[in-house]
Amino acid sequence: MEWTTIVGLILGFASMSGVLLLGKTEASLATFVDPPALLMVFGGAAAVALIGFPSRQLQNLFSILKKPFLSRLEEPSELINELVSLAELARKDGLLALEARAWQIRDPFVALGIQLAVDGTRPEVVAEIMNNEVEARATRHREAKKIVELVGRCGPAFGMIATLLGLILMLGNLENPDTIGPSMAIALIGTLYGALLANLICIPLGEKLSYLSHEELLVRQIVIRGVLAIQAGDNPRVVRQKLDMFLPPRLREQPYAQAG
Amino acid sequence: MEWTTIVGLILGFASMSGVLLLGKTEASLATFVDPPALLMVFGGAAAVALIGFPSRQLQNLFSILKKPFLSRLEEPSELINELVSLAELARKDGLLALEARAWQIRDPFVALGIQLAVDGTRPEVVAEIMNNEVEARATRHREAKKIVELVGRCGPAFGMIATLLGLILMLGNLENPDTIGPSMAIALIGTLYGALLANLICIPLGEKLSYLSHEELLVRQIVIRGVLAIQAGDNPRVVRQKLDMFLPPRLREQPYAQAG
Amino acid sequence: MEWTTIVGLILGFASMSGVLLLGKTEASLATFVDPPALLMVFGGAAAVALIGFPSRQLQNLFSILKKPFLSRLEEPSELINELVSLAELARKDGLLALEARAWQIRDPFVALGIQLAVDGTRPEVVAEIMNNEVEARATRHREAKKIVELVGRCGPAFGMIATLLGLILMLGNLENPDTIGPSMAIALIGTLYGALLANLICIPLGEKLSYLSHEELLVRQIVIRGVLAIQAGDNPRVVRQKLDMFLPPRLREQPYAQAG
Amino acid sequence: MEWTTIVGLILGFASMSGVLLLGKTEASLATFVDPPALLMVFGGAAAVALIGFPSRQLQNLFSILKKPFLSRLEEPSELINELVSLAELARKDGLLALEARAWQIRDPFVALGIQLAVDGTRPEVVAEIMNNEVEARATRHREAKKIVELVGRCGPAFGMIATLLGLILMLGNLENPDTIGPSMAIALIGTLYGALLANLICIPLGEKLSYLSHEELLVRQIVIRGVLAIQAGDNPRVVRQKLDMFLPPRLREQPYAQAG
Amino acid sequence: MEWTTIVGLILGFASMSGVLLLGKTEASLATFVDPPALLMVFGGAAAVALIGFPSRQLQNLFSILKKPFLSRLEEPSELINELVSLAELARKDGLLALEARAWQIRDPFVALGIQLAVDGTRPEVVAEIMNNEVEARATRHREAKKIVELVGRCGPAFGMIATLLGLILMLGNLENPDTIGPSMAIALIGTLYGALLANLICIPLGEKLSYLSHEELLVRQIVIRGVLAIQAGDNPRVVRQKLDMFLPPRLREQPYAQAG
Repeated sequence: MEWTTIVGLILGFASMSGVLLLGKTEASLATFVDPPALLMVFGGAAAVALIGFPSRQLQNLFSILKKPFLSRLEEPSELINELVSLAELARKDGLLALEARAWQIRDPFVALGIQLAVDGTRPEVVAEIMNNEVEARATRHREAKKIVELVGRCGPAFGMIATLLGLILMLGNLENPDTIGPSMAIALIGTLYGALLANLICIPLGEKLSYLSHEELLVRQIVIRGVLAIQAGDNPRVVRQKLDMFLPPRLREQPYAQAG
Repeated sequence: MEWTTIVGLILGFASMSGVLLLGKTEASLATFVDPPALLMVFGGAAAVALIGFPSRQLQNLFSILKKPFLSRLEEPSELINELVSLAELARKDGLLALEARAWQIRDPFVALGIQLAVDGTRPEVVAEIMNNEVEARATRHREAKKIVELVGRCGPAFGMIATLLGLILMLGNLENPDTIGPSMAIALIGTLYGALLANLICIPLGEKLSYLSHEELLVRQIVIRGVLAIQAGDNPRVVRQKLDMFLPPRLREQPYAQAG
Repeated sequence: MEWTTIVGLILGFASMSGVLLLGKTEASLATFVDPPALLMVFGGAAAVALIGFPSRQLQNLFSILKKPFLSRLEEPSELINELVSLAELARKDGLLALEARAWQIRDPFVALGIQLAVDGTRPEVVAEIMNNEVEARATRHREAKKIVELVGRCGPAFGMIATLLGLILMLGNLENPDTIGPSMAIALIGTLYGALLANLICIPLGEKLSYLSHEELLVRQIVIRGVLAIQAGDNPRVVRQKLDMFLPPRLREQPYAQAG
Repeated sequence: MEWTTIVGLILGFASMSGVLLLGKTEASLATFVDPPALLMVFGGAAAVALIGFPSRQLQNLFSILKKPFLSRLEEPSELINELVSLAELARKDGLLALEARAWQIRDPFVALGIQLAVDGTRPEVVAEIMNNEVEARATRHREAKKIVELVGRCGPAFGMIATLLGLILMLGNLENPDTIGPSMAIALIGTLYGALLANLICIPLGEKLSYLSHEELLVRQIVIRGVLAIQAGDNPRVVRQKLDMFLPPRLREQPYAQAG
Repeated sequence: MEWTTIVGLILGFASMSGVLLLGKTEASLATFVDPPALLMVFGGAAAVALIGFPSRQLQNLFSILKKPFLSRLEEPSELINELVSLAELARKDGLLALEARAWQIRDPFVALGIQLAVDGTRPEVVAEIMNNEVEARATRHREAKKIVELVGRCGPAFGMIATLLGLILMLGNLENPDTIGPSMAIALIGTLYGALLANLICIPLGEKLSYLSHEELLVRQIVIRGVLAIQAGDNPRVVRQKLDMFLPPRLREQPYAQAG
């Protein structure tokens, strides 16, 4: 589902290439590669991240940044099916029967919950441990988003700094008028990088991180409710009803008319 | 009622054309059409939407974006009249008599509520199902608004990026001074597109989406109250009083002086 | 009291004229009138308002925009005097005696409240009807302020769009170097209009609308409390004490030392 | 203690003068005095304040703006000493003994509270009157801060408007190329004024107003608690303990180790 | 752990130097040192801090600003180990036995808590004193962050003011065209300084201050809970369980599976 992130990035850069093709210039994309500006903008972005956040958060960043590209979001309806089938098993053969099937559970958070339930942990402790885990994960997501936002906020400034450096060097040495144009062109590339870093990457990526995080927390709430319902020995049909409440209507198993 | 959106857009673009006419130049509107800038600004906007939001939300976007143009907002007072006449029928001939008239109900949300009531669903379940539906719809609206806002926020940056690309290409190749002016003119068209996309389209459209969504949720609250009152067998006059509370004073059936 | 709005607007435009006088140029104010820029900025502002808000809100706008210019804000202390004298009358001759004096009441909101009380409406219904009225009015004020803010937010962009249009036309046609200066001057007038629309008109007007609205709601709260106290047959001295609580200390009838 | 405001303003303008000295130009500070730009920026700022706020608030502004320059903030610890010594007197000789000493009380708010207590006002009325007074003062502070913020927000725009006026006049009349440089220099002075007004004066002054207001309200809370404790006949040691809770630890009479 | 702040600052300035090296100009870093611009930007920043905040807060600033560079953040897990070992001692030899070990306690906040407990202070007083201390510290942190943010907000404006001063001086004296380029280069250095001050220093430093402050408050919450648990004579294993709740899961002593 997360192919949109990659398609979006490709589309953004393809649009830039399209400008060159449509513009009928002989210029190639290489015109827009300027190592000093790259160094300034990406060095500055890294500097800002290092100054603004402790190393522990920066380490989390990479594992979280993979998400908008790689992770396949758990479909809530599949998850509910799995929890309902676990509830059926628990209802039929007892809670301990789940232990034999625990290794088949794909989602590690469901597996943790089932394990806790099988071990006879008291329900309120199960809930506290699982909520704690969810809260810790939410904090890591918020922190990753904050880093992306800080870089997005300062990125254009480092682009402008690269441009200022270029202009200052150029203006200090105007002897050869022929080089003014190309020097200014190169100076402006810094501004271009800063604008792309912020507007094509950081701002929309922060938005998707925030969405994915919200979605994941919703899914985990479903799991917590499901595990507690299984532990309580709820009827599988009741389990499904309870969990369906979290879904948008069109994804629910039972249409309205029969729900009454 | 939503003709204002279309009139506004026409007025915005007509003002631009008027500038040309009043400006007494021979330039035609074609001067302001620049395919590379169009590609950059609209490609960038699409890229930002794809990176920032998952495909499910983007699909919702189009059905919601039609609203400010096409949808006719349910007049709350008409809706109240319909609910009151349903209440009269239920009072006279019993709840089940509504089933025969259900197919005449224009609004699908009213129809859903009446169907649930006729089916004998318990009132608290009716309320939960209908509120759930309203909440899901509110979420879709909020998400559509977020997409429009993100594009409005990044749009000017992509306009500036188009302009930067144009300037960089021009400055790198200054041999023919005669082309400098026209090249700069074309470069500036990108900034123009970005400013129009954000200020004429995204920012005001987001405002109207937010208004329409708020209005629609109000209307649905009226429906929920009405259906529950009908199910409770309330006197039609009481139903009207309860629902009138939601209306601004001038739209109410009963003037104040007699309300006491 | 609202003369400040008009004085402020005059001062703002007088400052601009003063710049011309002090600048010792032969230029007249006519230099700063540019019909195309006027069309673009005010056409754009109107377009934004139409796209962003439904027609019903736009109709309210004009009646509310008069306020910062025309309306004389009810002095809370005069209003309290009137309510206290009504309380005295009600105490002496009974509630019905107020009916004879109702036509003398200048403020329609006080008149509505007295009418409701005289009609024997139950106090909680009086409170609900009057609060409803206040809430509807507060909503209209908030919406008018939102329109002014939206125009203030997009106004500078339309000024810039007017300037961009001028620059693009000029740069596309550089044959006669003598016209470059005047063309740029005219292009910049758009930016000037946008800046004035936002900073001299919309932003401060939005601030005053918000102040007037807040003040008016305070006054209406006093009226509601007063009417309810009159209806409850409170001693006029108690009525004054209750209402004085809403006033800033220096406007109160009774100085502190005697208040105990 | 408020000398920092004056030192800061002097430092800001001294830095500007230092730029001239270090810059080794023959230019004097007079280069930076441009009456038309002064008129535009300060006239515009006054216009914005008049349009945005009613006359009553503008009158308050001046008495509140003196604070960051003149007022000596009541030291909370001195105030607590005074309240404790009043508590001792009341404990020893009765509440009425305070009347004789009331004229010695420097702070009018303490005097008001003691007067109310001596007059036998009921404690809840004392609290309401004093809180009302504090609330009215807090409102005046918030309003003064809003005016400063509005001017700080619109100030740079009026600087830009002054510059635009200068540029438009210059560009419309380019006959003498020798005057272009000086004309542009003068035009830019407007932008300079706007930036100074906002960044050197309004924004930091608003920050200090907000701090002073917060501090003053804290001090008044201490007074209210103290007066109520005196009126309740609390032991002076208990009065001190109660009031010390409001102080940052290092200013307290009793170090921690003995507090237990 | 806070080496990231220093590495980030070095990286930021190294990127600027790298731009010069990669740019193959003969310009040295000295090109970018301009005393007047330095004076304007840092004098302006100091002025803003003095105008915006009282001297007491400015004094706190320096002790707090050291933190992102020097302070080693207490590892929560080490602290928990120390509290648990104190709990063991208290359990074995009684609360008073802690007094002998108090001088070994590295963290002064833990020492304060233990001292209060040993002195027989009532638990609610211990909690109030310690929370008060934490609150006072949180306030100092918030204030330090506010100063950094204000400087970060106004910094770019003082950079622009330095540039405006340079441009105005240059434009007023255009006789020698050869000096225009270098003069503009110098003028732009002010903008460069302002951008660096805000984006490389103030904005990310404010972010880290906010993080460190949040982390420190968390650590102090752990200490308060620990001291109260020790005072209550809790079993050391229970003390660890209570405190582990504050840690992210991976840092806890006991893995989940055994926690039940």
